[in-house]
Amino acid sequence: MNFLSTFLLVCLISTTLCVPIIELPEESVDNSIDDDVQLLRCSGWRVAGEANNLSPWNKIPESCVDYVQDYMLSRSYEIDLDIVCDEAMEFAKSVVVGDDGLDVWVFDVDETLLSNLPYYGQHGYGSELFDNIQFDKWVLEGVAQAIKPSLKLYKEVQQLGFKIFLLTGRTENKREITINNLIMAGFENWDRLILRGEEDHGKTAVAFKSEKRKAIMDEGFRIIGNSGDQWSDLIGSHVSMRSFKLSNPMYFIS
Amino acid sequence: MNFLSTFLLVCLISTTLCVPIIELPEESVDNSIDDDVQLLRCSGWRVAGEANNLSPWNKIPESCVDYVQDYMLSRSYEIDLDIVCDEAMEFAKSVVVGDDGLDVWVFDVDETLLSNLPYYGQHGYGSELFDNIQFDKWVLEGVAQAIKPSLKLYKEVQQLGFKIFLLTGRTENKREITINNLIMAGFENWDRLILRGEEDHGKTAVAFKSEKRKAIMDEGFRIIGNSGDQWSDLIGSHVSMRSFKLSNPMYFIS
Repeated sequence: MNFLSTFLLVCLISTTLCVPIIELPEESVDNSIDDDVQLLRCSGWRVAGEANNLSPWNKIPESCVDYVQDYMLSRSYEIDLDIVCDEAMEFAKSVVVGDDGLDVWVFDVDETLLSNLPYYGQHGYGSELFDNIQFDKWVLEGVAQAIKPSLKLYKEVQQLGFKIFLLTGRTENKREITINNLIMAGFENWDRLILRGEEDHGKTAVAFKSEKRKAIMDEGFRIIGNSGDQWSDLIGSHVSMRSFKLSNPMYFIS
Repeated sequence: MNFLSTFLLVCLISTTLCVPIIELPEESVDNSIDDDVQLLRCSGWRVAGEANNLSPWNKIPESCVDYVQDYMLSRSYEIDLDIVCDEAMEFAKSVVVGDDGLDVWVFDVDETLLSNLPYYGQHGYGSELFDNIQFDKWVLEGVAQAIKPSLKLYKEVQQLGFKIFLLTGRTENKREITINNLIMAGFENWDRLILRGEEDHGKTAVAFKSEKRKAIMDEGFRIIGNSGDQWSDLIGSHVSMRSFKLSNPMYFIS
């Protein structure tokens, strides 16, 4: 009598003993279906964020922590950035840039030109509440690397004759480190770097960025393109002719 | 001497003979990497569409035909619709609906309330150029089924006291069949069904829908929510307080 026969005999004698053992494979199958559905739900959540369908949120869903980590370290994230920057490039090339120097491309900084992935990797990829003291420490290190497809786009639109305005929620006291970091990462000769001043304290990103775009337009500039990883970089008033939303499932800024 | 040894011996004698045989596995690996990257590129293209990053397009990329078909028939599409409609529902519930009957939820019709998937399934899931004569024939059959998460949302916002306005690019000559189809699919007691009239001929969807939303707002209504599968349902002027973009990688309407 081999092991299986012995086991089945024991089962006949005591169903109580066997039930948990027999159910294991079924549970295992169910779990794998659940896992697949959970993966699709996390993917759906991420895409809903990219499409501006989500209400404000302050950390990623608990059930999507692994998904977001995997995504951020994957070829998928790189490809998604490539595609959006390629689309922006195609659009930029289709524009006849005026010779009056008034055509502008606006870039956000964090998660648009510079990647804070090393910081977020140390802080749960968006699964922890935002800690501005810790994040400021990271920013002051000034070691963020370029988001490569954005660097390529940056150079291309510069080449095409667009003025480059950087519009960031970083505060004025980080101007110097931001300049140094951007230059270290390969960004050069932008035309303006606009940061949050004292007077912008407490404003939402949508309000702050809309006001700054209005001021830019009031000077006579035409904002042709705008690249940002947050919808709050792109919406509100005085929006760009075309906007390009770069992928970012790690955090949300209103 | 077994087969492998004989084979290796022959290889030593004639490398020319063996090279194609030896390379096969490598080619196979390369293809599979290419396939994975292609899948990610198609996924990235779809998400870029959902995030309104794409220039106008008239058919899906050739390389993504299988991807779009698989997606449209998958649990992923269902889950994506669920998530967006759930978000809309949460938002609707958070609104204090006025007792003046002026709070409105706007729904688009095709690929928002009604699914034309059987038609698109017969026409390459968006890989063929749009054929308005064939599509009209399908519409006139009046057999499109409800997009279930939208039907659930529709009933919920109705229950909450919102006025329901349907705003569609379908033309006035399809009013009767549209009404019959909507009722057959379970949609009841909407407050208005706005279709394209003679005077709207030649307008982009963005222009047509913006004008209609303006007219609605000019009457004193507040457009609180707006559900659509096209960005042209949602952007332009007189936009809703919150908009909800339902997944649709099959076609693009300006």
